[in-house]
Amino acid sequence: MTFPLSPVDPDLDLVLERVIDVPADLVWKVWTTPEHLVHWFVPKPWTVTACEMDLRPGGVFSTTMRSPEGEEFPNSGCYLEVVPGERLIFTDTLLPGFRPAPAPFFTAGLFLTPQGDSTLYRAVAVHGDSAARQKHEEMGFHEGWGTVVGQMVDYIKAM
Amino acid sequence: MTFPLSPVDPDLDLVLERVIDVPADLVWKVWTTPEHLVHWFVPKPWTVTACEMDLRPGGVFSTTMRSPEGEEFPNSGCYLEVVPGERLIFTDTLLPGFRPAPAPFFTAGLFLTPQGDSTLYRAVAVHGDSAARQKHEEMGFHEGWGTVVGQMVDYIKAM
Repeated sequence: MTFPLSPVDPDLDLVLERVIDVPADLVWKVWTTPEHLVHWFVPKPWTVTACEMDLRPGGVFSTTMRSPEGEEFPNSGCYLEVVPGERLIFTDTLLPGFRPAPAPFFTAGLFLTPQGDSTLYRAVAVHGDSAARQKHEEMGFHEGWGTVVGQMVDYIKAM
Repeated sequence: MTFPLSPVDPDLDLVLERVIDVPADLVWKVWTTPEHLVHWFVPKPWTVTACEMDLRPGGVFSTTMRSPEGEEFPNSGCYLEVVPGERLIFTDTLLPGFRPAPAPFFTAGLFLTPQGDSTLYRAVAVHGDSAARQKHEEMGFHEGWGTVVGQMVDYIKAM
């Protein structure tokens, strides 16, 4: 189901799956347009202060997250696969141009399946070992990724 | 020239470029067929005792190298881009299925440009920092990669 992403290994990976009542083409749009993504991508009151996308394998996907205290956290990676409306795979293990990254952590896959006007939304975080998975879980994967899906749905409905 | 691979940075990357008197389609063939690759891919008297290829982004590219003393060194990674006859990009920073690898080191690009019956052969190793570049150079990048190009040309001519 997730090819070319590795099949999910419960010991290594994290999955968020939900049916959301917005259409897949709009989910794709807000995931692949910086002007839209900045409005929902991090749990409020955090904000996204910068975002760059070059939507092709090897192309940049970067965001800068800003804490309520004003501290900024830049993240840079690249896309690995882009199938419009269906599938987006990106990683922080490689910088743009496929250069090995200084602090590799995970690869992410977003999988969208239209269900009428709703969408089966599936986000997978793939890690290299169980310690990375656990760290990601303790960082609040489920709450965080769940919160931003809710923010995204609200944002789409208000578009 | 190397898109989507990062532009070469002399402080981080290593390049081997040669014009070889065998056609590009045969170079592509021996790079993308395990039965051919095992005959030339490591400097003799080292041998390749296993090789697996799934020639698509996220697909496995693995080899096991055997030293003259009989010690085996498995390497596993995946392809990132496959353009038949022209361009092959792969990395050891991601395992098959784009899973982050335990010991990331470099991304490699092979670029072939036909020149009549000859080929401009360009191999690039892209690293995350200058220490990795230096380690790769000290491991014998230029001698090693140069030697196997010679072995490859001899192998193709004898096919």
